[in-house]
Amino acid sequence: MKRGLFITFEGADGSGKTTQLNNVKMFLEEKGYSVIVTREPGALDIGQKIRDILLHHKGVVADRCEMFLFLADRAQHVETYIKPALEQGKIVLCDRHTDSTIAYQGYGRGQDISLLKELNKIAVKGLKPDLTLLYDVSTETAQQRVGSEKDRMESAGIDFHRKVRNGYIELQKEEPNRIKLINANNSIETVFEDTKDIIIKLLQEK
Amino acid sequence: MKRGLFITFEGADGSGKTTQLNNVKMFLEEKGYSVIVTREPGALDIGQKIRDILLHHKGVVADRCEMFLFLADRAQHVETYIKPALEQGKIVLCDRHTDSTIAYQGYGRGQDISLLKELNKIAVKGLKPDLTLLYDVSTETAQQRVGSEKDRMESAGIDFHRKVRNGYIELQKEEPNRIKLINANNSIETVFEDTKDIIIKLLQEK
Repeated sequence: MKRGLFITFEGADGSGKTTQLNNVKMFLEEKGYSVIVTREPGALDIGQKIRDILLHHKGVVADRCEMFLFLADRAQHVETYIKPALEQGKIVLCDRHTDSTIAYQGYGRGQDISLLKELNKIAVKGLKPDLTLLYDVSTETAQQRVGSEKDRMESAGIDFHRKVRNGYIELQKEEPNRIKLINANNSIETVFEDTKDIIIKLLQEK
Repeated sequence: MKRGLFITFEGADGSGKTTQLNNVKMFLEEKGYSVIVTREPGALDIGQKIRDILLHHKGVVADRCEMFLFLADRAQHVETYIKPALEQGKIVLCDRHTDSTIAYQGYGRGQDISLLKELNKIAVKGLKPDLTLLYDVSTETAQQRVGSEKDRMESAGIDFHRKVRNGYIELQKEEPNRIKLINANNSIETVFEDTKDIIIKLLQEK
């Protein structure tokens, strides 16, 4: 059986990436593809417990504790869920993956970026997305869209989110073939048209 | 204020290390030292949640998920608990630390030992035990002592535990100044005499 496709959705909370992920799911299913939707952190039972720690812990979370928890979630997710689905020929749409770690913990929190890249490689054991859609939105617009319902990550302040945004853009410049930048300041419809164009091109190539 | 002392207790479950740790605590407190007792994994609130995942999860835990969870627990523990106590001049007695990762995940489960050593360094940010007491016991004796109340780690089989034991002995050979081997097949009293001799020597040196 032909290996499936692994597509990741990246960007700020409020960028609309999750909405677009669901649009892509419907679009692909209408074309007859077998699609699964997942996310990081917290897709699986173990991951859910990890996600609870990360998003709702009241005390101090040491930077490196946070980093390793994300990696633990990812290792479990890739090994027990994503790789088996790809081997069954499915298209896996994943809301956040390795680039989130680099953008948030690296560029955002100032942790060592080359170290994080190495650790990501260890966590995924060679898996790489066939395509990453990066939904770029101005930090102000993202904050407005998210509104007042913020968890621990989202409430980290506007400077932090600017650094994350710039980090994503750096990553896109480093890997323009894998990561496609989409202007997510536009309307949902326009953003979906841009998304579809990229997805259609990928399907033609693979 | 003088920096405290960091002493770790290593060995198989059933080696008697926890009993000896408590004996050492009483011995040091009688001498007027300020002592704190802790453990890995699971000393803190975050660590407790991690420990629950590690010890009681029913499904498959990917090797690298387990590895990163231990490291997350350690990073949090060192940063928010051990280092502050040492800075206050306390003696910290810790039940399992970095050597457990190398012995169990490295030698036991066959994960890359040099990688684990690197990751440990990242997790502890330069902290190193002043002394590690390694309680070496035959695998058969350890299993008898543990009895039928086994968690996920303890029920991994006798071959696994033999590998772990040999791994600990390798580590002791690599770092004989830090890691002191104690024959834990002996009676609790004899083992405590051996332990005290080493502790007294450390206190004289520091």
